[in-house]
Amino acid sequence: MGLLRDSGVVYKAAEEVDLGPQSDQSYLRANVKAPRMAGFLVKVFVWFLESRIFGALLLYFLKKNNLIQKLVTHAELEEEPLFEPLHPYQELKEQEVEYIDSDLSPPEKVQRAVDCLPSQRTLDDLKSGFHRWTILDYSRAYTSGKITPRMVAERFIVAVLESSNPPLQMSFFINYDVEDILRQATESTHRYEKGEPISVLDGVPIAIKDEIDCSPYPTTGGTKWLHKLRTCTGDACCVMRLRLCGAILVGKTNMHELGAGTSGINPHYGVTRNPYDTGRISGGSSSGSAALVSAGLCPVALGVDGGGSVRMPASLCGVVGFKPTFGRIPHAGVLPLNWTVGMVGVLAGTVEDAFIVYAATNGQLPSQQSTILPPPKEYFPLLKSTKPITDIKLAKYGEWFNDCSDDVKICCSSSVEQLCERYGWKIVEVTIPEIEVMRLAHYVTIGSECSTSLSTYLQKLNIAELGWDARVALSVYGAFSSKDYIKAQQIRNRQMTFHRNIFAKADVIVVPTTGVTAYPVKNDVLETGELDYINGAALVRYQIAGNFLGLPAVTVPVGYDKAGMPIGIQFIGKPWSEATLIHIAIAMQALRISECRKPKVFYDLLNKEE
Amino acid sequence: MGLLRDSGVVYKAAEEVDLGPQSDQSYLRANVKAPRMAGFLVKVFVWFLESRIFGALLLYFLKKNNLIQKLVTHAELEEEPLFEPLHPYQELKEQEVEYIDSDLSPPEKVQRAVDCLPSQRTLDDLKSGFHRWTILDYSRAYTSGKITPRMVAERFIVAVLESSNPPLQMSFFINYDVEDILRQATESTHRYEKGEPISVLDGVPIAIKDEIDCSPYPTTGGTKWLHKLRTCTGDACCVMRLRLCGAILVGKTNMHELGAGTSGINPHYGVTRNPYDTGRISGGSSSGSAALVSAGLCPVALGVDGGGSVRMPASLCGVVGFKPTFGRIPHAGVLPLNWTVGMVGVLAGTVEDAFIVYAATNGQLPSQQSTILPPPKEYFPLLKSTKPITDIKLAKYGEWFNDCSDDVKICCSSSVEQLCERYGWKIVEVTIPEIEVMRLAHYVTIGSECSTSLSTYLQKLNIAELGWDARVALSVYGAFSSKDYIKAQQIRNRQMTFHRNIFAKADVIVVPTTGVTAYPVKNDVLETGELDYINGAALVRYQIAGNFLGLPAVTVPVGYDKAGMPIGIQFIGKPWSEATLIHIAIAMQALRISECRKPKVFYDLLNKEE
Repeated sequence: MGLLRDSGVVYKAAEEVDLGPQSDQSYLRANVKAPRMAGFLVKVFVWFLESRIFGALLLYFLKKNNLIQKLVTHAELEEEPLFEPLHPYQELKEQEVEYIDSDLSPPEKVQRAVDCLPSQRTLDDLKSGFHRWTILDYSRAYTSGKITPRMVAERFIVAVLESSNPPLQMSFFINYDVEDILRQATESTHRYEKGEPISVLDGVPIAIKDEIDCSPYPTTGGTKWLHKLRTCTGDACCVMRLRLCGAILVGKTNMHELGAGTSGINPHYGVTRNPYDTGRISGGSSSGSAALVSAGLCPVALGVDGGGSVRMPASLCGVVGFKPTFGRIPHAGVLPLNWTVGMVGVLAGTVEDAFIVYAATNGQLPSQQSTILPPPKEYFPLLKSTKPITDIKLAKYGEWFNDCSDDVKICCSSSVEQLCERYGWKIVEVTIPEIEVMRLAHYVTIGSECSTSLSTYLQKLNIAELGWDARVALSVYGAFSSKDYIKAQQIRNRQMTFHRNIFAKADVIVVPTTGVTAYPVKNDVLETGELDYINGAALVRYQIAGNFLGLPAVTVPVGYDKAGMPIGIQFIGKPWSEATLIHIAIAMQALRISECRKPKVFYDLLNKEE
Repeated sequence: MGLLRDSGVVYKAAEEVDLGPQSDQSYLRANVKAPRMAGFLVKVFVWFLESRIFGALLLYFLKKNNLIQKLVTHAELEEEPLFEPLHPYQELKEQEVEYIDSDLSPPEKVQRAVDCLPSQRTLDDLKSGFHRWTILDYSRAYTSGKITPRMVAERFIVAVLESSNPPLQMSFFINYDVEDILRQATESTHRYEKGEPISVLDGVPIAIKDEIDCSPYPTTGGTKWLHKLRTCTGDACCVMRLRLCGAILVGKTNMHELGAGTSGINPHYGVTRNPYDTGRISGGSSSGSAALVSAGLCPVALGVDGGGSVRMPASLCGVVGFKPTFGRIPHAGVLPLNWTVGMVGVLAGTVEDAFIVYAATNGQLPSQQSTILPPPKEYFPLLKSTKPITDIKLAKYGEWFNDCSDDVKICCSSSVEQLCERYGWKIVEVTIPEIEVMRLAHYVTIGSECSTSLSTYLQKLNIAELGWDARVALSVYGAFSSKDYIKAQQIRNRQMTFHRNIFAKADVIVVPTTGVTAYPVKNDVLETGELDYINGAALVRYQIAGNFLGLPAVTVPVGYDKAGMPIGIQFIGKPWSEATLIHIAIAMQALRISECRKPKVFYDLLNKEE
């Protein structure tokens, strides 16, 4: 029993922990004990890891060195496990919120969303600065007849071709089908010609992360093999809803292989490059969706966020990323890479556009209502009144907030200050304990679920078809015991209690979106990918509550670092509080949108100057 | 990856499986590959199991030989994992059911339950045969003044002393406190003297399984050490509710160590002996609770049922065992030996008494309502009308039903036939697929949760303080991977679908309670306990749906085998259908109660003949 005697941390009951600013809970920085590896070193490491005896020892020491054993496996805690981040639905007494019937069709929901939003500027109204075209810009341009969906589609195809080839090689897409795009665009054009567009999304190009089923494409999950073993038989529910609104589904975007990384470096489909600097990463795993929205190819794209995979690349590419409360958007037709942390999310140029697509896609399927909580009514922020909501309280945990690069810290701090000053909102200083423990518990959870879910396919797979960094990930993922997993769920319950108590004091938690900005793509990563758990930990630092606890979260671009790389700020909301969250995000955006910079790679599809 | 290449069973989608009597799904008998062991052999086996290298190999082959790898770990199935057997509450359209306010106090609920029950015979009314005294017998005797709670308590204490010592050595109790019993009895006696009994439970002796907290006793869980590491600080919620009704809590009953076995052979506190034959087991793990109700020491006792632990010993000891829907009775104050399968249940001489105690103890705590489904309203069967419910359909899966000893098969078959004939009810022939798979998945689940829950204590424990069979169990329990665990939850979801579809055709499932009756206690088990997984599998054969799927279930005694050992029949109900279930059980009991035989060890505490 020797190895079982490793000592674990003893946690006191969650309800007894002081969450105030003077709490005795110390902030634990991520203590990642794994050197950056790429190229030949990765191959040697994989060889060790996959060998039976060395591998078991190596995994044991990896778990131990990285504190998983001390903080999770051998932890002493009394909370029951909480296996799913489900929240009993409650009608929040939010200000200015309108409840609507969840039985409305997607186009009706989109219209309600548009009606609820503050009367939007079009880009024509903006005198200065750079702005991406919005859904309403597309819709108005089509309605006015200045341009047709068919013309946009043709420009889109030219732009994708150009960006895919040298010298750019942006690697936005894994698949797109020119004929399918043109067919949809032609149909949409006919609807506008008849004066019968389905919704403001009619004719709007939308791209889909290649983790979500979308006809007529296979769903690769960023691999060279998964689509051969799992056939895509039609649209995922969320994609079908966008199609019903008239959107043009323009293809499947690149992603980190199996979503098992944060850089967006894919050995099979290329490194998705950051439009602000093509020598840098886009972030991941929804890399392609973020980069192409940033580059102006679509106003919105869908991603999936299991550990920040929508919010991280959105932040690194200077766009908005929105992940609703767990369960808001049906998961049907999304690769089951995990079951309890992942969620479809939206990447968009503006908060308003993310909200419109959220409105189109949300609402549980009847078949799912029997096994999870009763479906909430939808609700939308009704922000027509000119007055912003008063009395918003933003929880800020200083030590955590500041655990990032100087540029990020300064930019995000000043953004929060400016926001509070402008609207008279208040900052509440808090302590959120055990954030690093939550990161590890989430890692055990997503890893265990991913390897279990894929196990059937992996048994049939020639392992050499997997990229090197995915092989490392799957070796580690497969090494967890049922005790590791269940203890992680006990930690989930504990964190749920902490966050419930934080939200008794504040409306949202505010943090930077990532600890670092987009970093350079080194030359040794192209074939083997890269193991860089230190940068990885800095990227996921602020993501985990959104996934492990199922909380809604949104990132908004607020500035640039010295290298000109975008910085995002993140608001994490109470369960079901999307209305307030969107309201705050719009307020933040309004303060910073005039400083938006044009990426080096950008396509102006509406191109009104012509 | 060699070992990972073991092939698994490929399951077709649950909704496509034919559940009719002509289904192509074949019935798989339990294929237990483990010889019976006791005495010195067990010690050698434990030595191997606990050694690092041999142990890992041995566990690997145990999992493989017992089909866990083939049927669970490497299974190919598409269902999502379902981690908790929670059922969305629905008001069933049951006949003759009254809904009541769940805010009533326990004594008020007890009164409503009594009012709802058919006007009960007292034993005085019964002309012939043997009958155990019921709660109402006690209540009426006290009210009439023929006898007082204090007199009953004194008789109880004498009886316990006699039964504990040679030659009987029944080992009913782990702890009881004469002074505490007499104090409670004296207080109850005063209440009757003043004409102010709290409820029909006032002065009624009730015993509590030593897995449930009850002042002033430690909670040992059948061990010599757990209570030293985990202090009992007061009554469990269910015990407190009984105390509020005036019941006399008479002590903590013996159990299989950690609930990790089915025989009730406890190396520390003795073998709980069957009152019908003291040379035979009582069954377990709620062994003491079952045996002492059988022996007349209490009309009711509480147990905990994580894998049939209430129903099996009830059946083997010839009494009623009732396990409500998962979540009906709060788990607060019960040892956390698992989180998703265990549940407080009631052992009683009659179905009516089990129902009264269920009424006293059920209803969620406000603190639990936030993390699980909203609390259902309680409901009670309103059976005052003389007509029984018509149109009951009983699902019967012939091959499963008949996978038991001949005596059990004949007795249970004829009982079901007689029941249907008498009331005009119908049998629906069905096929319930993958029952053996469910047993294995449940084993992985309860084992993983038990070893995780106890891990903190086990790290501080000198392993020699554990009994030998518990050491084997914990070694196996600790060997499961997160993949084993999550796959088991996928199987849970699958079985939930099967059972939902079965319940679309029928009101209850009817099966024998156990595959074998009480078997002899061999001489070699007293010190080391016994490993007998073949008999164990026969005992749990019909239990698992009640735990893994959280379904309500009740066992009713219906006869005796050739050795004179009791046989029970079990009804498994839809979620939340306790009303119908109790109704059916009462109907079954009415047909068989006149054949009830007196155990060899029996104490007549009301002793009206005196």
